[in-house]
Amino acid sequence: PAWRGGPQFNGNGFSFKPGGEVQYDFGYVSNPNNALATSNLGYNGFVRRLMVSAQGDVPGGFTYSINLNFAGGVVGYEDVILAYQPVNSKWSAQIGYMIPFNGLDNMTSNEFTSFVEASQFQDAWNNGRRIGAAVGYTADTWLIDAGLFNGAINTQATNTEWQTAVRGVYYPRALGGQLHFGASYQYRKTQVSAQGNLYQARPFTQTTSVRFVGTGPANNTGTIASGIAASGDQIFGAELAGIWGPLHFAAEAQYLMVAAIKPGQVLPPGQASTGQRLLNDPSFFSVYGEIGYWLTGETRGYSKGEFARTNIRNPFDKGGWGGVQLVGRIDYLNLTKWVGGTGSGIVAGVLNGGQQTGYQLALNWWPTDFVRFTTQYDRAQITGGPNAGAVDPTSTSLLTDRSYGVNVVTLRAQLDF
Amino acid sequence: PAWRGGPQFNGNGFSFKPGGEVQYDFGYVSNPNNALATSNLGYNGFVRRLMVSAQGDVPGGFTYSINLNFAGGVVGYEDVILAYQPVNSKWSAQIGYMIPFNGLDNMTSNEFTSFVEASQFQDAWNNGRRIGAAVGYTADTWLIDAGLFNGAINTQATNTEWQTAVRGVYYPRALGGQLHFGASYQYRKTQVSAQGNLYQARPFTQTTSVRFVGTGPANNTGTIASGIAASGDQIFGAELAGIWGPLHFAAEAQYLMVAAIKPGQVLPPGQASTGQRLLNDPSFFSVYGEIGYWLTGETRGYSKGEFARTNIRNPFDKGGWGGVQLVGRIDYLNLTKWVGGTGSGIVAGVLNGGQQTGYQLALNWWPTDFVRFTTQYDRAQITGGPNAGAVDPTSTSLLTDRSYGVNVVTLRAQLDF
Amino acid sequence: PAWRGGPQFNGNGFSFKPGGEVQYDFGYVSNPNNALATSNLGYNGFVRRLMVSAQGDVPGGFTYSINLNFAGGVVGYEDVILAYQPVNSKWSAQIGYMIPFNGLDNMTSNEFTSFVEASQFQDAWNNGRRIGAAVGYTADTWLIDAGLFNGAINTQATNTEWQTAVRGVYYPRALGGQLHFGASYQYRKTQVSAQGNLYQARPFTQTTSVRFVGTGPANNTGTIASGIAASGDQIFGAELAGIWGPLHFAAEAQYLMVAAIKPGQVLPPGQASTGQRLLNDPSFFSVYGEIGYWLTGETRGYSKGEFARTNIRNPFDKGGWGGVQLVGRIDYLNLTKWVGGTGSGIVAGVLNGGQQTGYQLALNWWPTDFVRFTTQYDRAQITGGPNAGAVDPTSTSLLTDRSYGVNVVTLRAQLDF
Repeated sequence: PAWRGGPQFNGNGFSFKPGGEVQYDFGYVSNPNNALATSNLGYNGFVRRLMVSAQGDVPGGFTYSINLNFAGGVVGYEDVILAYQPVNSKWSAQIGYMIPFNGLDNMTSNEFTSFVEASQFQDAWNNGRRIGAAVGYTADTWLIDAGLFNGAINTQATNTEWQTAVRGVYYPRALGGQLHFGASYQYRKTQVSAQGNLYQARPFTQTTSVRFVGTGPANNTGTIASGIAASGDQIFGAELAGIWGPLHFAAEAQYLMVAAIKPGQVLPPGQASTGQRLLNDPSFFSVYGEIGYWLTGETRGYSKGEFARTNIRNPFDKGGWGGVQLVGRIDYLNLTKWVGGTGSGIVAGVLNGGQQTGYQLALNWWPTDFVRFTTQYDRAQITGGPNAGAVDPTSTSLLTDRSYGVNVVTLRAQLDF
Repeated sequence: PAWRGGPQFNGNGFSFKPGGEVQYDFGYVSNPNNALATSNLGYNGFVRRLMVSAQGDVPGGFTYSINLNFAGGVVGYEDVILAYQPVNSKWSAQIGYMIPFNGLDNMTSNEFTSFVEASQFQDAWNNGRRIGAAVGYTADTWLIDAGLFNGAINTQATNTEWQTAVRGVYYPRALGGQLHFGASYQYRKTQVSAQGNLYQARPFTQTTSVRFVGTGPANNTGTIASGIAASGDQIFGAELAGIWGPLHFAAEAQYLMVAAIKPGQVLPPGQASTGQRLLNDPSFFSVYGEIGYWLTGETRGYSKGEFARTNIRNPFDKGGWGGVQLVGRIDYLNLTKWVGGTGSGIVAGVLNGGQQTGYQLALNWWPTDFVRFTTQYDRAQITGGPNAGAVDPTSTSLLTDRSYGVNVVTLRAQLDF
Repeated sequence: PAWRGGPQFNGNGFSFKPGGEVQYDFGYVSNPNNALATSNLGYNGFVRRLMVSAQGDVPGGFTYSINLNFAGGVVGYEDVILAYQPVNSKWSAQIGYMIPFNGLDNMTSNEFTSFVEASQFQDAWNNGRRIGAAVGYTADTWLIDAGLFNGAINTQATNTEWQTAVRGVYYPRALGGQLHFGASYQYRKTQVSAQGNLYQARPFTQTTSVRFVGTGPANNTGTIASGIAASGDQIFGAELAGIWGPLHFAAEAQYLMVAAIKPGQVLPPGQASTGQRLLNDPSFFSVYGEIGYWLTGETRGYSKGEFARTNIRNPFDKGGWGGVQLVGRIDYLNLTKWVGGTGSGIVAGVLNGGQQTGYQLALNWWPTDFVRFTTQYDRAQITGGPNAGAVDPTSTSLLTDRSYGVNVVTLRAQLDF
């Protein structure tokens, strides 16, 4: 076989590659002012991903990619895709469970991201995978993907939620390096029998399930409930990145517009809303910028609109110490927005979802192409949000203005094959 | 390796073949008269099967077949079998989780059935897999299989349910084609601590879990509960099929006799019944007939008592458009039966389980041997049954006589390797 | 490929071996005096293990071992380990989910144990796998392993439980055979927010989940609840084994000292205890000894501190009848201990956890190296314990002194690849 971590077998128009990935995380998230009565902050260790995968071709241009995630004691899914991609054709078509093309950090495989988790708007906007159908065109220096999607992979009941998505990327080699310019758009409709969205974001790690920012009320253990009654939303995204030798930078911004359901609005028969109704449609914004440098001289891998595997110059098996990359990022999310009126979590007409800024620093050590150890520190600085009152109960500031910080450390060991 | 979708490795008396299967279904089931207050009818998309499998031999005539189904977010099982089958022997022995030999449509791999689901009596009789042990004898033109079975694969508590099953098939090449004559018998006993059976059938698709026919009362969302108190049942089955070039037909009938537990009957200590007790033993009947034709000239695959993979004559990889098969079927199930007395769902002495007739039409397009797209339309015509009162509340007919129809469309994309 | 049950592929510093294991158990556990109102005794059949595994190397001395257990309808885990083990080095380092080096019977793969389950102290002490990091040194005739461990593999909440463990084994070839001398030590701390331990043991089979001995009160269905409030415990273990041709013996003893939380003891903020508080720290003891003989002349496999696969001399594929081994064991566990004071399950100052002695006999038939059929009989003799009152309600003896026996039969069919 050929080897890409695991073996790849080829013959007679068929191919098959078994694979997998293990990510163990151990981390610490501080409890601000020790104010939240939860055992869900502090130390925690767990397996973040435990993937088993099978990829291959059958004759005629058809391919499959099955990626199961067995972490968490349950059956989870990453890409589960059937595709038609004839040799030498720039067109491709896909059916399956996939990411609706929603940004550079999310399209990049989790093995190759700069930090242990993707940028916070991917978490906040619920930019997860959906089942659907998509077509793509990939030229030498640009690509465009568009798709129509239903909901989760395993909904046995009626499934009326849907979305469209389109993303284009221009990725010339220019200015002495690799450039990346991308834009994306999503139009999403919620399930008609339960129209609502909860936008919330973790503090840059999954070693806790507490969120400090989110568009719903929190109980005293930090858990955020329900959300906004909404028939859907739209997301506009922009991407910019560049790689010059050992240096790279990347930045993305996304703007989300909610189609809120108004108080008193009458829904057609068979329809219902969940969460709080709002007088005006809110919109939310998030942006991040990162810069990274390979101390050992590697060049960050990139391929067709995504970051990809980096080839380590002096790996263990050749007597070296592997590759070391230092990455820094600032990641800002704003879920606080004027909506008018009053209600739960509305302060002087402002929906107090909170603002979260992450100051992130990661050291990625790759002993070989297939093994990674990450040490990451995040300072999450929160202003307002549903936990601000519990964390800072004596302040005389508006709840939307109270600020506090959380320290986060995450260690990761990763091997993929 | 040799290739059968996935690779097959052989050597030193060992063999190993990894494999898998993906089936995505998208469908629509109409809500009759919009009468059922459920979001479980209408549009739905989901992954019907997401199989990962491993098959192989170890020296000495022992083989294994492990087929896990990860659709639905849970661990599911298809065949999980250890077998002893010496080379050149017509005898074989099996231990494991398997189908108790209950009919042509159920023994045929789900990849190769004419429609997206097997005939409705397989669903109605709960003809699922069980753990057990079986022996078989396979000659050139006939076979016989018999087994003794316990219950589910993962029962941690006492497991007193059991059944025996036997099936014989005669499959000569004669009259210019391939013929198939089969018969089967099952004797089943329920768990002594919960003696009861619910017989019910879906409307020819799994994109809904609503059933319009079933031997228990329904709530207003279409869900059927409990069932018949029964110590067990017997099932008699007959099979007939034939293949002549691009044409095939198949027909099966099964007759089920319930050993009902009677009102007032005293069970031994440690035994208990569930569901409704009946004055007389009911029996139920179901039959289907189908006819299919390959517009592109293929001959439907068949092997040793089952339909099998069809070799496509002009697949994509040879510049053709693949194979196209048109199949039609009428499928009838009768769960309405005189039992005497009164009770829940008993109308003038008749247990109102309902009759369901399916008029089914499917177009199967196979671009290659391993990829299938199915477009299927079903008209389910229901008479009586537990939802008849809710669907047709103003009729003056007996509940057992009220009729209505449901339209069902199912699209499937399938790849196996 | 090379073949070790399944195929092993090697090349360019990479390797990959897919594998799996199926164990079907069918068994019977008698209900003592028919006194327990449960359907969890009696006959039961289920799949004990349904493992899928992937093992391999990536260049640089890194290896992975993923072992998933899909029995029981859920995702279960055996070893999930990333290791660094350079060629020709006696040192190794591991990160992952692994057994904390707690004794010969538990470190031996379940495929190769003498009986269907490991000795009862492994069950009683909750000697399961944990995530953590470990280092090892393996010389020609001895090894030592030590590790630091967190808790379960998939805890999403704070995870403050931890333990250290160390084990050394000396395994010279001497006295005409293979000798084994081992010792282990574990220091364990419970989760600070729920400090408690339940020590309990099954009757030598997993075909039931009823326990007759355990350090908590039982309800009338045999289920034992809560346990002892404890901040942690320590376990001291000793191992002795020897193999001479077809004969082997093995014996292990473990002594567990509980750090009980005392009545009235004030815990720091954020800490809490579960289960019953005790006036004095109890300690528990268990020991077993076994002797086995291969009637067909094989020598039991052994490798570096563990029993290993036995090479069958006349397997099926060479025209023989396989190998037959007869094993007998006596296994004693004492969970009854003076703790002073009064309370639930405390009889005259004695905590009535019960004593269980197993008289075990197993016949292991291996038709080939990869297929095993076991027929095992156990007589479990219980004195005291939380079910003694229900089983023997009329006795005038103290609850700690009432004795009864349970008969257990387990059949197993196993294949691994």
